[in-house]
Amino acid sequence: MGASNNNKSMQKHFTDRLIKAIKKKGTPICVGLDPRVAQIPKFIKTKAIKEKAHSFAAVADAIVEFNKGIIDAVHDLVPVVKPQFAFYVQYGFSGVWAFEETCKYAQEKGLLVIADAKSNDIGSTAEAYANAFLGESDVFGEKVAPMDFDALTVNPYLGYDGIKPFVDVCKKRKKGIFVLVKTSNPSSGDLQDRVVDAKLRNYEMVAHLLESWGSDELGENGYSSIGAVVGATYPDEAKVLRKIMPHNYFLVPGYGAQGGKAADMKVCFNEDGLGAIVNSSRDIIFAWEKDQNEKGYAQSARNAVLEMKKALGF
Amino acid sequence: MGASNNNKSMQKHFTDRLIKAIKKKGTPICVGLDPRVAQIPKFIKTKAIKEKAHSFAAVADAIVEFNKGIIDAVHDLVPVVKPQFAFYVQYGFSGVWAFEETCKYAQEKGLLVIADAKSNDIGSTAEAYANAFLGESDVFGEKVAPMDFDALTVNPYLGYDGIKPFVDVCKKRKKGIFVLVKTSNPSSGDLQDRVVDAKLRNYEMVAHLLESWGSDELGENGYSSIGAVVGATYPDEAKVLRKIMPHNYFLVPGYGAQGGKAADMKVCFNEDGLGAIVNSSRDIIFAWEKDQNEKGYAQSARNAVLEMKKALGF
Repeated sequence: MGASNNNKSMQKHFTDRLIKAIKKKGTPICVGLDPRVAQIPKFIKTKAIKEKAHSFAAVADAIVEFNKGIIDAVHDLVPVVKPQFAFYVQYGFSGVWAFEETCKYAQEKGLLVIADAKSNDIGSTAEAYANAFLGESDVFGEKVAPMDFDALTVNPYLGYDGIKPFVDVCKKRKKGIFVLVKTSNPSSGDLQDRVVDAKLRNYEMVAHLLESWGSDELGENGYSSIGAVVGATYPDEAKVLRKIMPHNYFLVPGYGAQGGKAADMKVCFNEDGLGAIVNSSRDIIFAWEKDQNEKGYAQSARNAVLEMKKALGF
Repeated sequence: MGASNNNKSMQKHFTDRLIKAIKKKGTPICVGLDPRVAQIPKFIKTKAIKEKAHSFAAVADAIVEFNKGIIDAVHDLVPVVKPQFAFYVQYGFSGVWAFEETCKYAQEKGLLVIADAKSNDIGSTAEAYANAFLGESDVFGEKVAPMDFDALTVNPYLGYDGIKPFVDVCKKRKKGIFVLVKTSNPSSGDLQDRVVDAKLRNYEMVAHLLESWGSDELGENGYSSIGAVVGATYPDEAKVLRKIMPHNYFLVPGYGAQGGKAADMKVCFNEDGLGAIVNSSRDIIFAWEKDQNEKGYAQSARNAVLEMKKALGF
């Protein structure tokens, strides 16, 4: 059952913890833990099938073993990992068990963990999502933390009363959120690029909202616990957004497999060299395919992180 | 483990099934299954605590027992129920187990079930969410349906490539989605009401996109498998949206506890008397509180549905 980590409430502001970890590891790389079963090495799957046949429970075991291998191989190199909820919940409650185990193991290894669930709902229900991933839930009057991630991705389409419950938990339990502003996918412009109120694009307007929503919740370093998801695939937009949101940490997806280039990452950072973490998923965790190194998948992941670090310049 | 209901692929278009169920029950009411533990009758909780102490597993058991009571009491009255994912996932994997059990039991009782998870992500990851709630997941090469809901709520902020994977599963497995257009909460205007491209509000623009996205996927009745979430708390906006989206079924939250009135519902329907389902959660499932009828909570829920039916005029 979920661990209630009461020490958390004594901890520092999320971005203070994040920046400390980035400085310690010397890089802002985030490893995305998106376990696509077809790409998990065969020897791990064979073992899981032997123990639990062709079941969701067996898939969940395989995912956890795979993730532990990746975490062991990269935890001394990177400050943060980001499991993507969709790849876990597609195996029902067994998959969600694997999601929880992944979070716990990564935290044991000293990593910060961002739950990438892109949560959103109206106020009273958003509170339940905030409880789920960052907070504590009501167990017959007792408060217990079900997952206790360090941060969560959140969708802004419902407006501030759908954001506030997350902000409240951030304040209380020193957690962070990353709100979708400009996402990395080709169709992100369908809504996000529309010009609103005859002056700003939707994503710019969301950025202005974020800057104001997070203004009373800064860490010692001057950064807000409300971060922003800004796709690496749109560097021109990122440059504009960096100026609108000087106090919001960027979570930058889209590097590598999706087309984001190292040179394009610079615009995501502030002049202090801080302000962004750059995520890569497939290119790291499934690097063994390119290396044709199934048994050594963890070492391949480690090498891929080192390569990415070199390409980014830190 | 999730049931793979292969009969589903032989079934009719989602809206044909929905309309058939609405006509059979004589009402478009949807009962929201949002189990807030504090409001679950004590006798159910006492039993769960006795069996499994103060654990997430005990909460999950209490939720399932409560939901079964509600479903037994209303399944002959309404066509559809809508469990809200947040209230389940806040109990981690145990809660997700309760979510799955609720879906299965409701379907066994002949109800259609909408998973209210407001899912959203970029293309390849949206596919995993589509698998989770509506489709089938890869179990070492075999395809197995983990949850097999009839429909799912989806957030549009990421644009069409985040919607298409859901539409593909809708086509293949005769499922439906309801895309957030104008939500029922007070802050919904923060983004949704902004004027885009100097002519339309964001929610109207999303409505136009929906009408086009769903145009090739109509049931025999002329309705699309891509529906729209339109809050009962904004009847003026609903009236406009009804005209923009004549082929999209509306899922209407916000009736009752949130302030939506019966008279305001009319604008959500087309002239054929179809085109909308009206959801109510707290006012139905926790009607026992007002009645001070803890042991008879299921009967209270049934009476509340009958009252709502009368108020709506069908």
